[in-house]
Amino acid sequence: MWVRNAWYVAAWSHELEAGQVLARTIVDQPLALYRKRDGAVVVFEDRCCHRFAPLSMGRVEQDDLRCMYHGLKFAPDGRCIEIPGQPLIPQSAVVRRFPVVESGSWIWVWMGESDKADVASIPSSTRLGDPAYHMKAGQLDYAADYLLIDDNLLDLSHLSFAHEKTLGLDMPQWADERPRILPLERGLRVQRWLRGQPARSFMRRHGDSLDLWNTYDFLFPGVFLLRTSFYVAGTAERCKLGPPSEPPLFLRVDDQAVTPMTARTSRYFYAAGARSGDIDTDRVAKLYGVTEAAFHEDKSIIEAQQKLIDLDPGRRMLPTSLDAGPTQFRRIVQRLIDSESRPVA
Amino acid sequence: MWVRNAWYVAAWSHELEAGQVLARTIVDQPLALYRKRDGAVVVFEDRCCHRFAPLSMGRVEQDDLRCMYHGLKFAPDGRCIEIPGQPLIPQSAVVRRFPVVESGSWIWVWMGESDKADVASIPSSTRLGDPAYHMKAGQLDYAADYLLIDDNLLDLSHLSFAHEKTLGLDMPQWADERPRILPLERGLRVQRWLRGQPARSFMRRHGDSLDLWNTYDFLFPGVFLLRTSFYVAGTAERCKLGPPSEPPLFLRVDDQAVTPMTARTSRYFYAAGARSGDIDTDRVAKLYGVTEAAFHEDKSIIEAQQKLIDLDPGRRMLPTSLDAGPTQFRRIVQRLIDSESRPVA
Amino acid sequence: MWVRNAWYVAAWSHELEAGQVLARTIVDQPLALYRKRDGAVVVFEDRCCHRFAPLSMGRVEQDDLRCMYHGLKFAPDGRCIEIPGQPLIPQSAVVRRFPVVESGSWIWVWMGESDKADVASIPSSTRLGDPAYHMKAGQLDYAADYLLIDDNLLDLSHLSFAHEKTLGLDMPQWADERPRILPLERGLRVQRWLRGQPARSFMRRHGDSLDLWNTYDFLFPGVFLLRTSFYVAGTAERCKLGPPSEPPLFLRVDDQAVTPMTARTSRYFYAAGARSGDIDTDRVAKLYGVTEAAFHEDKSIIEAQQKLIDLDPGRRMLPTSLDAGPTQFRRIVQRLIDSESRPVA
Repeated sequence: MWVRNAWYVAAWSHELEAGQVLARTIVDQPLALYRKRDGAVVVFEDRCCHRFAPLSMGRVEQDDLRCMYHGLKFAPDGRCIEIPGQPLIPQSAVVRRFPVVESGSWIWVWMGESDKADVASIPSSTRLGDPAYHMKAGQLDYAADYLLIDDNLLDLSHLSFAHEKTLGLDMPQWADERPRILPLERGLRVQRWLRGQPARSFMRRHGDSLDLWNTYDFLFPGVFLLRTSFYVAGTAERCKLGPPSEPPLFLRVDDQAVTPMTARTSRYFYAAGARSGDIDTDRVAKLYGVTEAAFHEDKSIIEAQQKLIDLDPGRRMLPTSLDAGPTQFRRIVQRLIDSESRPVA
Repeated sequence: MWVRNAWYVAAWSHELEAGQVLARTIVDQPLALYRKRDGAVVVFEDRCCHRFAPLSMGRVEQDDLRCMYHGLKFAPDGRCIEIPGQPLIPQSAVVRRFPVVESGSWIWVWMGESDKADVASIPSSTRLGDPAYHMKAGQLDYAADYLLIDDNLLDLSHLSFAHEKTLGLDMPQWADERPRILPLERGLRVQRWLRGQPARSFMRRHGDSLDLWNTYDFLFPGVFLLRTSFYVAGTAERCKLGPPSEPPLFLRVDDQAVTPMTARTSRYFYAAGARSGDIDTDRVAKLYGVTEAAFHEDKSIIEAQQKLIDLDPGRRMLPTSLDAGPTQFRRIVQRLIDSESRPVA
Repeated sequence: MWVRNAWYVAAWSHELEAGQVLARTIVDQPLALYRKRDGAVVVFEDRCCHRFAPLSMGRVEQDDLRCMYHGLKFAPDGRCIEIPGQPLIPQSAVVRRFPVVESGSWIWVWMGESDKADVASIPSSTRLGDPAYHMKAGQLDYAADYLLIDDNLLDLSHLSFAHEKTLGLDMPQWADERPRILPLERGLRVQRWLRGQPARSFMRRHGDSLDLWNTYDFLFPGVFLLRTSFYVAGTAERCKLGPPSEPPLFLRVDDQAVTPMTARTSRYFYAAGARSGDIDTDRVAKLYGVTEAAFHEDKSIIEAQQKLIDLDPGRRMLPTSLDAGPTQFRRIVQRLIDSESRPVA
């Protein structure tokens, strides 16, 4: 059962060009996205009310969208404004419109009741063109429930094993120590120090080993905003393992969002980079390459996990101390589901 | 639910060569087709009564068909006439035979009760080798309910949109005016004048614009027999928009048939051409090329439409004045379904 | 419904190398196979008890297997012996282990209750490296119920038709005469003489035609151990059509095993060859090539048969005298199913 009253990332802003109609599916709902002449995004149910042809195969005409099966035309508010050869247009000739906002470099769509859409609740993510950062962005589709990807992002202990040759290289501490987990309105804040970690080559001028302050907010449905700050070894102790106050030597930025398409398909949007003063674009490409390799490792194991779950859906997992984040977040999701007593048509 | 008491196009005549066994599926029924030595077609259920191996993997022996799993042999009437190593053949050793007729260039199969098969009810279609016409033929499979293809053929307004760059180029009149629709025994006759249409290059010696008389019979399950007659501009007015009595400058012929294979797969057979005096084979190839391009446009939109229907099967479509043909034809189909009170084994 | 208290062939011994983890599925149960340092095979349920990641994506560490999602480590008896960062390991942290034996060149797994696993009941098959034989081995996956493959192997009359150009070339006797069928503990023994068969080129020094003594044991779930002995023509008569006592001119060996993976997927393991004195490796390759071509003929027809069965599951097959073997064996399978009153978790 879906949480509908929530903002979901539908696309990167640069995916939707003027004149184009983009087809997306979120929580089993097909959507058609296009831009008006002023650039503002319009999101319709991707189904003409006449014969159910997809509007994403339609044509943008000024600010309107025309179905290219039999030619019905719709204004940005969803009302049909033309039926070829028929002067009267019934009031019921309308397609559902969804609230939409561009923020950071993502197009966010509200899948529930329009009057509950709260723009202020959209989390703040990095804009790809922001001169303060060098970032690289991508996306990946999973044949899996989005909650399994959320589980993965809420328990980074897997870096020591699933990513032992990529993101977690020589970093057993990911699995051996537990992070601090703090509650947020619709998610969790997860923080930890990784002390005395081997410095990658381009950081080695600061010493052979470094302390890393790793903190992320994880918000429904799967927004993951991670900041990793690098310090000289010993900083963690000096901060008594609390949040650091001094500016880092290097700041890595990871913005990610998981979007459920259907019960067993999900899209994963991600950008990785660092402060522009810390890194050149060549180095960003390398960092991004390692990160994307790790995401393919996750995809393999999570899709296999999904198949095993579906083979025997009633089976109970073994709880361990590793699962604190996933367990707390699943409770939040259940609370959100319960709070939507009536399904929204 | 299927209409079984009906003739369905199973194949083009030229698809079934001597000695060959062709596998087809019509209304969920697998069929094996072969020719006797005299050329007459035999149609069996494509399932040996012994262990259910497909007879379409069998071998034609004189007028008989042998299953090539364990060697049972069947006479053209469906009776088993040989079980290797077993002298007695039980009376129940029989495969179902279906009535079959070749007419025009199609092989028609009756899927219902044999005693109700009425050869006279087979519509008259163009024979591909007829010297009076230059024709070119093909076929295309849809992942869609045959009735969605029928809908498409019964509402040609979509030519102005779905085919705006092929069959409907510069022809908004398809959508802006409504045809006359007349009832037939198991279908509809649809007629209209398209006045002052831009003449394609090879017709331009008759004027820059022409009047087209467009008439087709559409018969269950999806036989579409279209004749398009071209006249000098003004002819439609002179005929008071009724059927023309004078011979056309040019006569285009389109014979098509939709055959349901399963609930969500259909085969579309088509031939396009013109009177042999009107056109050379080179021009037929061009005309056919544009037509086939348009069929791929239909296929894209109809298969997408099917997926959207199946996502939310209870949803009601918005009726418009464009839907008169589809709506009337769906009533005919429902009447045919209702008339078959008992399913035929 | 599966028979679980049985030995199933999971793999050829040479498929499982040291350090490797092999994923297999038998009777719907995913399995992970690896070797300890002493070479002994360990078989686990292919599902970590923690978050259900597949153990077949894990890593062999000495004699243990580590899940490479979050790092849980399991001893060969299935007990979890390490959870990263967690000193206490709950008693329920265990994965199911299955009894396993290597015999001949196959890895056999017992899918039922461990205490009923009877190693003595594993049939004796040829070891691929045995100097007494020249053998060649392979495997093939079917999209079909294993019982349809069993049916095929229990009624070799199909050689005259399905394999008329390969194994059954010029051998109508396969279909025209019926074999002797004897009951075994969990299967059948099937025997026959094929008299006066055309000698293949390399046997022609013994005469243009030969008598073949063809005998196989067929054991649940689908173990097929065939020996074909070639004699000079007339030997069958001299033996009064009973088993021959004299040594054959040539002895062909075929060892095969059918393993159900799921209800509609099965794996077929096979080796073909002859006594090493009878044949050189070049000739074995030819003999194996013809045999494997025949198996692809079987696969085509059986997968088509499966589809036709599934289209109309209630339909009854026509019994013939060809079906004695399949019919008797299906009764044995039903008896085995009935004897397992309670499903094993």
